[in-house]
Amino acid sequence: MSEPSPKPFAFHLDHTDGAARTGRIETPRGVIRTPAFMPVGTAATVKAMMPESVAATGADILLGNTYHLMLRPTAERIAALGGLHRFMNWKGPILTDSGGFQVMSLAGLRKLDEQGVTFKSHIDGSKHHLSPERSMEIQRLLGSDIVMCFDECPALPADRDRIAESMQLSMRWAKRSKEAFGERPGHALFGIQQGGLEEDLRAESAEALQEIGFDGYAVGGLAVGEGQEAMFGCLDHVPGQLPVDKPRYLMGVGKPDDIVGAVKRGIDMMDCVLPSRSGRTGQAWTRRGQVNIKNARHADDPRPLDADCTCPACANYSRAYLHHVFRSNEMISGMLLTWHNLHYFQELMQGMRDAISSNTFNAFEREFHAMREEGDIPPL
Amino acid sequence: MSEPSPKPFAFHLDHTDGAARTGRIETPRGVIRTPAFMPVGTAATVKAMMPESVAATGADILLGNTYHLMLRPTAERIAALGGLHRFMNWKGPILTDSGGFQVMSLAGLRKLDEQGVTFKSHIDGSKHHLSPERSMEIQRLLGSDIVMCFDECPALPADRDRIAESMQLSMRWAKRSKEAFGERPGHALFGIQQGGLEEDLRAESAEALQEIGFDGYAVGGLAVGEGQEAMFGCLDHVPGQLPVDKPRYLMGVGKPDDIVGAVKRGIDMMDCVLPSRSGRTGQAWTRRGQVNIKNARHADDPRPLDADCTCPACANYSRAYLHHVFRSNEMISGMLLTWHNLHYFQELMQGMRDAISSNTFNAFEREFHAMREEGDIPPL
Repeated sequence: MSEPSPKPFAFHLDHTDGAARTGRIETPRGVIRTPAFMPVGTAATVKAMMPESVAATGADILLGNTYHLMLRPTAERIAALGGLHRFMNWKGPILTDSGGFQVMSLAGLRKLDEQGVTFKSHIDGSKHHLSPERSMEIQRLLGSDIVMCFDECPALPADRDRIAESMQLSMRWAKRSKEAFGERPGHALFGIQQGGLEEDLRAESAEALQEIGFDGYAVGGLAVGEGQEAMFGCLDHVPGQLPVDKPRYLMGVGKPDDIVGAVKRGIDMMDCVLPSRSGRTGQAWTRRGQVNIKNARHADDPRPLDADCTCPACANYSRAYLHHVFRSNEMISGMLLTWHNLHYFQELMQGMRDAISSNTFNAFEREFHAMREEGDIPPL
Repeated sequence: MSEPSPKPFAFHLDHTDGAARTGRIETPRGVIRTPAFMPVGTAATVKAMMPESVAATGADILLGNTYHLMLRPTAERIAALGGLHRFMNWKGPILTDSGGFQVMSLAGLRKLDEQGVTFKSHIDGSKHHLSPERSMEIQRLLGSDIVMCFDECPALPADRDRIAESMQLSMRWAKRSKEAFGERPGHALFGIQQGGLEEDLRAESAEALQEIGFDGYAVGGLAVGEGQEAMFGCLDHVPGQLPVDKPRYLMGVGKPDDIVGAVKRGIDMMDCVLPSRSGRTGQAWTRRGQVNIKNARHADDPRPLDADCTCPACANYSRAYLHHVFRSNEMISGMLLTWHNLHYFQELMQGMRDAISSNTFNAFEREFHAMREEGDIPPL
């Protein structure tokens, strides 16, 4: 295993602008500039991208999925091959989720009890078990730099009792996760706050996590169907319940306007499959909103997707080309649009980091919404 | 249109070793080192590759398919967008086929007469027409650097009368192609020899083409199911029927051992979808023969596909990773294996060019076959 030298994991808060924050997470594998967007490399690849290209978009850190990797090729195999970084040729830090969320959304025939969860693989139906202890073991085998506690995330809407019970179970699992994680210099363990949209349950969860003590705090259980208004309502109070001096990670978010709203409310890290998934279905995200490259209006359009974007898709190709290769079902369609989308998301993060540093976040946010309201350039 | 400055098209024969030749084709868009292997960019993309990556493998020239491009996005559209080079972001020379071969192999409901061929698109069933004149027009609209005559290629086996008739039709079409092509400084027109496996028909065809006069001569109608022995038998006499001072292009070839055997017999240029198509189905071509990355023997193998290969797939990934991403149906599987295969094919060409230059082609060929006979490295 190519373990990095055990330097401490540290978060430096450099500047705030209202509730928005910018800073740096230092890890032995490199610095993560916050607010940070983490592209998702589910099965040891960010779909349609070479890892060098992901780095070129400005990504400092990737997310890997414990659930997928434990099933195929297995954590033990990845460990024997030198860890996830070497396996997938990504030199920067990697955050792994705990597997809990995907077990709930993907696996078949789940059985959940105090100990953990037993489930059937969505790939081949084989039986597997996850618990706080097993999740910590898998994430250690993968060589993850930022490890997530094993939690349960109930789908919303759910009644208050169900949310409270689930949150309390997740807090007991957080304690077991911390114990199983042990002392691993240079590696971080993040707790995950639960509590649905209930402010008091969120506060109870935040308190329980801080009592255990983590290197960072994630906001779990959002972006699960509650809608942006409810999510922002929750984010109006949640970051304030979490420590100022630790990174705050909003899991599974999101669309560009979700991201801007979350950063405005004090979130430091996010992840989402959206830019890569959209890229494979002909959807581009630009400063002017979404562009559906399938649309016939692009067939003869010699202009780039976004004339001000410096990504390869915009620098070297016309909308007409992007339309043609999408229609022709060519792989370069997903390759170019994913690259563009990841580039745009990272550029958005850089814009916010700059704006927070210069106390101009509100102006940045106004400009962001104004550009989107203008919409795509008119057809020729 | 970004037409290059009209410098002449020229072939320089630098060295021969037996019948094998090495040289340079000079075009306004760059030099093509021969023997040359041309990757195929059927629908304005070499599948699974960025054009910069294709260039990085050492390819000097791409092939584009007239049949596919005339149907989608259409030659007129590509012309309006500045030509095929700009459309697909390829700065080097492009050779386009005439469309004739694909009409025979892909289109539905063909009707062939002296004038040309009418057919239905395999994409949407729409009706189209190709003739020598229309093929020249399409290839001019695409901005092709090396234009191919419109010909008919009968499937083998076929009886001698059918082959003779077809060849004579192709020769009449070659004359019409030349007339329709006209004078286009900096652009080349290649004739296509036909005649099946009949030495005298091949000679008659070669003579007819030279009477018309072309910038290069292709060997058509091979690699259509006759087998390597029959193809080599034909290539034992065919190149000698063609002018010494013009490039000789064997269309649609082939596997590495086909390529080596063709170069040995005096062929200068080849093209084939094999490296990219194989790459998308988990097949890698190496100096030690074929490797099927799907095979379970690779699942735990930390070694690269080929330890001596410098392509990204070999430099940065284990066989275990390549196996995993193939099994997981991840796009990076096709991206990496296609890159490797194209890199290997170009390395093979460079090896042959070097060997011919130093009069060591026979030794090169022996070593090539010896390495393949050794086979893949043993499992761990």
